[in-house]
Amino acid sequence: MRDVTKDNITDVFMGYMSPDMDPRLREVLSSLVRHLHDFAREVNLTHDEWNTGIAFLEAAGEISDKERHEFVLLSDVLGLSSLVDMLHSHPEGTSSSVLGPFHITGSPPLPLGGDLRKDFDDTVLLVQGTIRDPDGTPIPGATLDIWQTAPNGLYSSQDPDQDTYSFHGIQTVGTDGRYRFTSVRPVEYTVPSDGPVGDILRACGRHPWRPSHLHFIVEAEGFKPLVTEVFAADDPYLDQDTVFGVRKDLVMSYQEMPAGSFPEAGFELSGQVDEPYLKVEFDLTLVRQA
Amino acid sequence: MRDVTKDNITDVFMGYMSPDMDPRLREVLSSLVRHLHDFAREVNLTHDEWNTGIAFLEAAGEISDKERHEFVLLSDVLGLSSLVDMLHSHPEGTSSSVLGPFHITGSPPLPLGGDLRKDFDDTVLLVQGTIRDPDGTPIPGATLDIWQTAPNGLYSSQDPDQDTYSFHGIQTVGTDGRYRFTSVRPVEYTVPSDGPVGDILRACGRHPWRPSHLHFIVEAEGFKPLVTEVFAADDPYLDQDTVFGVRKDLVMSYQEMPAGSFPEAGFELSGQVDEPYLKVEFDLTLVRQA
Ligand SMILES: [Fe+2]
Ligand SMILES: [Fe+2]
Repeated sequence: MRDVTKDNITDVFMGYMSPDMDPRLREVLSSLVRHLHDFAREVNLTHDEWNTGIAFLEAAGEISDKERHEFVLLSDVLGLSSLVDMLHSHPEGTSSSVLGPFHITGSPPLPLGGDLRKDFDDTVLLVQGTIRDPDGTPIPGATLDIWQTAPNGLYSSQDPDQDTYSFHGIQTVGTDGRYRFTSVRPVEYTVPSDGPVGDILRACGRHPWRPSHLHFIVEAEGFKPLVTEVFAADDPYLDQDTVFGVRKDLVMSYQEMPAGSFPEAGFELSGQVDEPYLKVEFDLTLVRQA
Repeated sequence: MRDVTKDNITDVFMGYMSPDMDPRLREVLSSLVRHLHDFAREVNLTHDEWNTGIAFLEAAGEISDKERHEFVLLSDVLGLSSLVDMLHSHPEGTSSSVLGPFHITGSPPLPLGGDLRKDFDDTVLLVQGTIRDPDGTPIPGATLDIWQTAPNGLYSSQDPDQDTYSFHGIQTVGTDGRYRFTSVRPVEYTVPSDGPVGDILRACGRHPWRPSHLHFIVEAEGFKPLVTEVFAADDPYLDQDTVFGVRKDLVMSYQEMPAGSFPEAGFELSGQVDEPYLKVEFDLTLVRQA
């Protein structure tokens, strides 16, 4: 096109794509570029602003490496990661929520009733529930991959003082679909804000906090894997998770249980907990593979 | 918000922005995020596609450095760079077009009638024209920063066999606003296609070629600087510039001039050109500073 204008450039772009290209890639790129051009026209994007945008992307590339994923963080704080999760959540199953950067593979088995708290000196938390299909039938043999922060707010991979698998474990449920373990209450934490994404948060007057949460990946044969998190109803950041991870059905509450009421059997800590403890009951529903 | 959904997440994002933030940043980010979310909803973006996008951005960051600007190239081939140019082109002036990565600062003065061809063995090209204001009045003392490819298709910065300032020069016009110099016809070339942006071009069935062009930056006191390029009407890539730089008013033609007709005075090469040569007459119009 020898007469490209601000009004026809989007069509010119479309005309450059080959009829033989992958149809889905064509669909995705067409929509992306139409929205990109509409954005620029709508705000009358200036050269200075374009330069700021390019410098931002270059700085995000610069700070990124195998450990630091600034573009993932960008997607997280703009709500894109959560939106993709929600677009593919099944209404009959428990909502999915962000995986986050702290999952590690190869976590050790956690026996039914096993303990993640180890030597950490904090109130015992008992977590249990049933893994079900959408009809309410328990799913025998489902696995639950669990990870969370230590009481100091750090995941094991962030904390040289913790073992690799501290507060990580994989539990396999029995025929009743029930999981159960002990731990401590996870704590709220901030996403990394020392890079270009942190600059955006500051420029927007936004904080970098996430409400505290337990991470779960639930898997069972014949069912869609579920990556999710559960949040406490009384968390101060529940209504302002900086990565938009909270869903109505992922909110639970910590019940304060009186001294002397800890189960006498079925837990690694049975017989060792005399004080008050906290209890969470949270059921998870998987949907069948298509 | 403890009940983020795919339908309200855009509003939740807006609610996170402080009323005290810079109003223009709010306007730009609001539009950007609304379009980003609409895009994801419109195409029902999958986790796999999201992963592909993140991997693309990380790879673009990886290949970028002080010399290689993959995000600029991305913006160029998606038409964003040209769109920003066009949004801020003044209808009364010559259209602007992409600066590109090959401009260098500190080019040597090129006297009126000076020669850029030097020892390169190719048909002489005579380029001349008038720099005017929107009323048609010549602008005395305007400067023209000129750069182009050598006949081998390379800019000096790409070619160890060329001097730093080969095919670069800055000319100051006299009271008549006229510029004139000799050179050779620039040649079409490809944008770098060995990185992730090249992968996009290939996946779209697009070529990486640009039509040949002369780059100009025109400056004069009291006028808006003009960054532009001029293209040949007979160029095979004129209608498919991969970076969308062609504008109707930036197309010129090479007139084939007969042997013996080269001007007898006014050019460094006057008296030395007996063969046929090419001639381009191209006027440039600057608009006043606001
Ligand atoms: Fe987390
Ligand atoms: Fe160029």
